[in-house]
Amino acid sequence: MNDTVVPVTEQGEGTRTFVRSDYVVLGGGAVAVLLAGLARYSDWGRVLPFVLSAIAVTLLASVVGRSVEQLGDRFGPGATGVLQSALGNLPELFIALFALRAGLVDVVRAALIGSILANLLLVLGLAFVVGGLKHGSQKLDSERARAIATLMLVSVVALVLPSMAHYVHTPAAQHEKALSLIVSIVLIVIFVLSLPASLRRGSTGLSQDMEHEAPRWPVTLAVGLLTVAAVLAAFVSDWFVTALEPAMDAAHISDAFAGLVIVAIAGNAIENVVGIQLAAKNQSEYAFSVVINSPLQIALVLAPALVILSQVLGLTALTLVFSPLLVVAVTLSVIITVVITVDGESNWLEGAALIGVYAVIATTFWWG
Amino acid sequence: MNDTVVPVTEQGEGTRTFVRSDYVVLGGGAVAVLLAGLARYSDWGRVLPFVLSAIAVTLLASVVGRSVEQLGDRFGPGATGVLQSALGNLPELFIALFALRAGLVDVVRAALIGSILANLLLVLGLAFVVGGLKHGSQKLDSERARAIATLMLVSVVALVLPSMAHYVHTPAAQHEKALSLIVSIVLIVIFVLSLPASLRRGSTGLSQDMEHEAPRWPVTLAVGLLTVAAVLAAFVSDWFVTALEPAMDAAHISDAFAGLVIVAIAGNAIENVVGIQLAAKNQSEYAFSVVINSPLQIALVLAPALVILSQVLGLTALTLVFSPLLVVAVTLSVIITVVITVDGESNWLEGAALIGVYAVIATTFWWG
Amino acid sequence: MNDTVVPVTEQGEGTRTFVRSDYVVLGGGAVAVLLAGLARYSDWGRVLPFVLSAIAVTLLASVVGRSVEQLGDRFGPGATGVLQSALGNLPELFIALFALRAGLVDVVRAALIGSILANLLLVLGLAFVVGGLKHGSQKLDSERARAIATLMLVSVVALVLPSMAHYVHTPAAQHEKALSLIVSIVLIVIFVLSLPASLRRGSTGLSQDMEHEAPRWPVTLAVGLLTVAAVLAAFVSDWFVTALEPAMDAAHISDAFAGLVIVAIAGNAIENVVGIQLAAKNQSEYAFSVVINSPLQIALVLAPALVILSQVLGLTALTLVFSPLLVVAVTLSVIITVVITVDGESNWLEGAALIGVYAVIATTFWWG
Repeated sequence: MNDTVVPVTEQGEGTRTFVRSDYVVLGGGAVAVLLAGLARYSDWGRVLPFVLSAIAVTLLASVVGRSVEQLGDRFGPGATGVLQSALGNLPELFIALFALRAGLVDVVRAALIGSILANLLLVLGLAFVVGGLKHGSQKLDSERARAIATLMLVSVVALVLPSMAHYVHTPAAQHEKALSLIVSIVLIVIFVLSLPASLRRGSTGLSQDMEHEAPRWPVTLAVGLLTVAAVLAAFVSDWFVTALEPAMDAAHISDAFAGLVIVAIAGNAIENVVGIQLAAKNQSEYAFSVVINSPLQIALVLAPALVILSQVLGLTALTLVFSPLLVVAVTLSVIITVVITVDGESNWLEGAALIGVYAVIATTFWWG
Repeated sequence: MNDTVVPVTEQGEGTRTFVRSDYVVLGGGAVAVLLAGLARYSDWGRVLPFVLSAIAVTLLASVVGRSVEQLGDRFGPGATGVLQSALGNLPELFIALFALRAGLVDVVRAALIGSILANLLLVLGLAFVVGGLKHGSQKLDSERARAIATLMLVSVVALVLPSMAHYVHTPAAQHEKALSLIVSIVLIVIFVLSLPASLRRGSTGLSQDMEHEAPRWPVTLAVGLLTVAAVLAAFVSDWFVTALEPAMDAAHISDAFAGLVIVAIAGNAIENVVGIQLAAKNQSEYAFSVVINSPLQIALVLAPALVILSQVLGLTALTLVFSPLLVVAVTLSVIITVVITVDGESNWLEGAALIGVYAVIATTFWWG
Repeated sequence: MNDTVVPVTEQGEGTRTFVRSDYVVLGGGAVAVLLAGLARYSDWGRVLPFVLSAIAVTLLASVVGRSVEQLGDRFGPGATGVLQSALGNLPELFIALFALRAGLVDVVRAALIGSILANLLLVLGLAFVVGGLKHGSQKLDSERARAIATLMLVSVVALVLPSMAHYVHTPAAQHEKALSLIVSIVLIVIFVLSLPASLRRGSTGLSQDMEHEAPRWPVTLAVGLLTVAAVLAAFVSDWFVTALEPAMDAAHISDAFAGLVIVAIAGNAIENVVGIQLAAKNQSEYAFSVVINSPLQIALVLAPALVILSQVLGLTALTLVFSPLLVVAVTLSVIITVVITVDGESNWLEGAALIGVYAVIATTFWWG
């Protein structure tokens, strides 16, 4: 995805299979996975295994993203969108499943909310600040912003009601798993219903906004890399989760802060950089779409999928009951993001406000 | 009201007093009232009396609506609006008063919130889906949508603060009745102040949007039918409330779910069907107005009137203290409805989102 | 500031140092300070000292405002804005500091929230009603309204999270002071970042909207009056706080109501009158700016400054932990104000709705 936005320098390389950044990601990924594996089974302290596995996960996420994009280009933007929805959050899914198997259900909850908040506040805020300072007030696709506002608010309801039911001890609190299961199905249905509109918009957006590079990888290579990366991601996610707790202990960081800030930022590093780069290039509509897609998929697909899978696979059940402070933080963040984006314009002060809100939330969760 | 929207077939019948649907409603209503009365004083099981009295109430509500409309036409749209505001929720008022006399204050609370939620989410959602699928993106009167957003948010404040004061035990919690009384008066004052604008808009809307049929009923007939229907509604409401609890027990449905979903949908059946039909005919502005008027009148007139009347008549006092989960559900529903409607446009995805939110809320209240 | 809006009668007095209203404020202020001082150290009952010191504070606030404006005119609208931001809330700052020294931390909390609510709901509501009844629907600067919406929502987050953390006993609750300190710094940073945009808009607004009178006071006079008024304000604020509690006891008014309604309205009397006058003259954009600036400065400058100063000066520490009911009241008030203003238009019904919300909140805090 990174390459699609720097077409000028690399367009000339169109006949080659790999561009420069592919070598970096594939080579770096292989090295990082090796080192992370060594760290896992040697005694390299408490911090290094965590750092190495975090880097390895990030690079594998990028390989998955590139493979999906190359594959998708063969089948048109519609298929790309569906593939990205299905596979883009694959590494996060693995991390969360291993964490649930390890019983770290609070870390998973914090990481899910944290990914949403980091994207909605920190990354979108940085994109608005960078774009706004370089180009003044920037336009967003206001129809898309309204659709996203609607979907985000539905997610908030799906988060608030099961949590509230739990904390005020209504009868539904004793049927937490069943309630979370039904609500998760509702969320996935709404996501599926929203796909046609976002795919349609996505394709228009691409053709208008940017010159799109042609697919360079043969199908077999793309499928092969996707498979290898996905399998490796499953292993490395396991190592990452194993290394997480000792590292947090060593650094005296609370579980909530770890999930909310560190796992959240690590797990979305690539989208984040791409989104901010696009804003800097004044492709603000596309930047907005890339940045906002991630929290939307987490809320409408990843979290519901984890709820369903955790029950089907017999892991520690993930329910949609989150701590009151997380619920309030995400509700207010969604409201402020909605107010800032629905007018179809952004500026750097709005970006600074979003970053400020993120700072307040992160501080509140700092103490463990 | 139903007839006004199918003018083509019935315009030719303008010289006759009754159109076809009048016969259905009046005849059906008479039969339903008779059967409901027999069921009330015979031993027809636990479910049938409830179903029959629900049908009778619904048909009587329609007779009241038609009489008001015929009367109103003599005095212009202004008088119609005032009359509709005053009498349109008459059957709901009776049901609630009898339920309060029977001490079923929680059912009344759930039914009030339920009527608001059912209209705001389920019916408006269905109207947006039906209209959107048939006609694409539909326009709403955005000035009216903003006025409604303001009024709905005032209602939310009037609901949240007394409830909060109760649950966090502030001094006001010991003056719950007085607080609810004053807040109810504020709500009614704001509703009265909003009447001129909505009447003015109503009349413009009517003349632009649709050919309006001439009044057909003589004044004495309209007044007579109104009186008879209102008196019968009082009796049948009593039977309905008496039949409610055994039926819920037989069907193993919780009180909250009964009020929130079943009483709410039964009590608003006519407006609901009309609103969805109008959306299907692409009269989206008029559909929005019909659907949204009902929850607005419940929040700004019916609920405050019940608070005042329950204290004046010495019934079980209804206060504006609602359960935390109901309060949060209605607050979030109003916020999502405001975000979806204030832009003056609707589409089927927004409708699906509203229905999804309703499904989540209904599920949360399913267990008893 | 009062004079700038009635240029016609006083423009002719441009060569004189003082205009008529200056005499009233300076003379009245001197008399009020004298009487308040006498009342403080004599035995004039419980109510009179409070009333006199309230009047004296109000008039001193006006002298500070006039001096700042006259000074600012020498340095252009940018400097005026900065000066107004820094000094405009000086009397409120003194009152709050003395109240904190007296340990009245709950009164300070209520007064801060009260000032925000009184401006946001009562004064803005009155301005919309007066302006709307005289001139129909009025225009607001919708870009400025959106920036203000963003800043107000950031303040809400900064208020809600520390309060929630306290009440649900998260680990951060044990670091309440540190958390409040960091959040306060974030708020002040965001306010400073917002200054360029509001100053730029302020200057444009002035030149377009109104004829601005020339500075009439020599610099030395302005600096002298500012110094004297600020010193006197410090004394009188002390007397006001001393007189507050006995007066509230005498009138059987709760602490919360006193802070929320009485201190709040007294402390902002001047801005309030000016804002409503401007709306009556159909200078709606300028009226909106004057009225809304005050709660914004309280939330983003005054409250954070008090948090920091109370810790630095070793007074009873003010933290950002407010009672749940205050937090919810201010959150809902900000949401309704945002929905009403972001469309860039106001009318009298929206004003009535804001006043209604204020009435509901004030009633909820009436009982002590």
